[in-house]
Amino acid sequence: MPLENPFYTPEIQGPYELRSIGRFELEEGGVIPDLQLAVATFGELNEARDNAILVPTWFSGTHATWWQVYIGEGRALDPTKWFIAVVNQIGNGLSTSPHTTDDPSIAMSRFPQVRIGDDVRAQEQLMREHYGVERFALVVGGSMGAQQTWEWAVRYPDKVLRAAPIAGTAQNTPHDTLFAKTLMDAITSDPGWAGGEYASHEDVRDGLTRHADIWATMGLTTDFWKTEFWRGIPPIAEGLEFSTYEEFQQNFVRALFTMMDPNALLTMAWKWQRGRNRQDLWIGEFYGLFAVSSTW
Amino acid sequence: MPLENPFYTPEIQGPYELRSIGRFELEEGGVIPDLQLAVATFGELNEARDNAILVPTWFSGTHATWWQVYIGEGRALDPTKWFIAVVNQIGNGLSTSPHTTDDPSIAMSRFPQVRIGDDVRAQEQLMREHYGVERFALVVGGSMGAQQTWEWAVRYPDKVLRAAPIAGTAQNTPHDTLFAKTLMDAITSDPGWAGGEYASHEDVRDGLTRHADIWATMGLTTDFWKTEFWRGIPPIAEGLEFSTYEEFQQNFVRALFTMMDPNALLTMAWKWQRGRNRQDLWIGEFYGLFAVSSTW
Repeated sequence: MPLENPFYTPEIQGPYELRSIGRFELEEGGVIPDLQLAVATFGELNEARDNAILVPTWFSGTHATWWQVYIGEGRALDPTKWFIAVVNQIGNGLSTSPHTTDDPSIAMSRFPQVRIGDDVRAQEQLMREHYGVERFALVVGGSMGAQQTWEWAVRYPDKVLRAAPIAGTAQNTPHDTLFAKTLMDAITSDPGWAGGEYASHEDVRDGLTRHADIWATMGLTTDFWKTEFWRGIPPIAEGLEFSTYEEFQQNFVRALFTMMDPNALLTMAWKWQRGRNRQDLWIGEFYGLFAVSSTW
Repeated sequence: MPLENPFYTPEIQGPYELRSIGRFELEEGGVIPDLQLAVATFGELNEARDNAILVPTWFSGTHATWWQVYIGEGRALDPTKWFIAVVNQIGNGLSTSPHTTDDPSIAMSRFPQVRIGDDVRAQEQLMREHYGVERFALVVGGSMGAQQTWEWAVRYPDKVLRAAPIAGTAQNTPHDTLFAKTLMDAITSDPGWAGGEYASHEDVRDGLTRHADIWATMGLTTDFWKTEFWRGIPPIAEGLEFSTYEEFQQNFVRALFTMMDPNALLTMAWKWQRGRNRQDLWIGEFYGLFAVSSTW
């Protein structure tokens, strides 16, 4: 039975649709019997079907930040001109995830390993079958969204007219792989995690709190803290205001991350660590060559 | 009874002397009934007593790195010219520390809170009483050693002719305080830590391993990993060689940190978080004014 978690609802995240693409075979050998992708769309697809923008999501993220910050008239992604689809990554807590499924073969600790390439293949199928989109004016994403964007560009070069990977690498670095491990260990070291079989994410509060604290030192930057950038950030909810950095850490960073699902975070972190384009299409590191041509 | 830990022995660390400065009252209100400082000296004090250099130690560090890397003929600190005293910080595992004392009033979890200012006062007393040094040609230290160096300069300006704080701030930053917390939580979240009353540091192996992993992402840099700087580092011991970054992390970083004492690391981290010069002598942040004059 799926676990209840109010964080992963339209009330918190904003509207989205669940779209099934059926049985989905994963690169690592597992299977998701009925893969449902949570999609939020903005704007209209034009008749030529050439104004589509695809947005994959980052670690711990959902479509929410995109409509809150980037999508809107006059913003970077303008829905009066573009048809914008934000597709939540597999396992992020909205698309099919360890705690959302009632399929005992993949629930909780039995959730299969998912790779960046799986997300990209699933998104391609989803957009083609459900929205009739065969080509994107732009694929844009940050961090793990950038990992997916790189993968899109080398896997489906004919379908990606422009790619904008932001703050993410085509091949994960050793430092980043080690960093993701510290995040994962913060969670799995909590006895409440129970090998992934907790009854509520609240049982893993200690681990999620440590995860939030580590995130605050590397996901946020030294400059973020030095300039007190947090003073310009609105509180998540009434009663969670902050006027010192300690209060910001408690009422914002910890408050946010302790609402999340531990297994979802672990699924994403495992995927993040292994971010690397398809070996057979591999053309160089982030700092090297990048080509969207389909002729090489 | 002190815990046995081979890491904190002359065989591993190189020669040092334990010098008692007696009962020592701490800034936070605690007392160390018989404070013993572990000191390693190099070179000879000249007749004028004006060739003394003092070196305080950094987090998790001892005097070892100093004689291994910085002290030697033709090196930065040349003992043919200078009398160099490396004083291990209080609680570092060599000077009086939670696991080294047989005084039940301060052993293990009962060890009192120590501040940077305590170390500096203790060092001043030690050098004056045991070595007859009233003035230093140079005080030099890195990281927490820099915190002590700043404190030396503002607390005893007449005694510090030159100060060289390396990679350390006069006032700890929010980011750094949060980072130190993640290191501490990695240890204290291990049930084997047992509130500081473990029977052996090996009971805390999981926590020390997590501590090592976090350290690897911030104590070592992204460039360290990107350039594979570790390839030039000699292994700690036979059988601990490495040819991949994963092996380096396991056989060097983890191997080193899991030899250490958990309470010693916690004592140092707590002190590090509160690194800040004496309020009444406070003259600005690291990036601001620094004065060694005694006239202001």
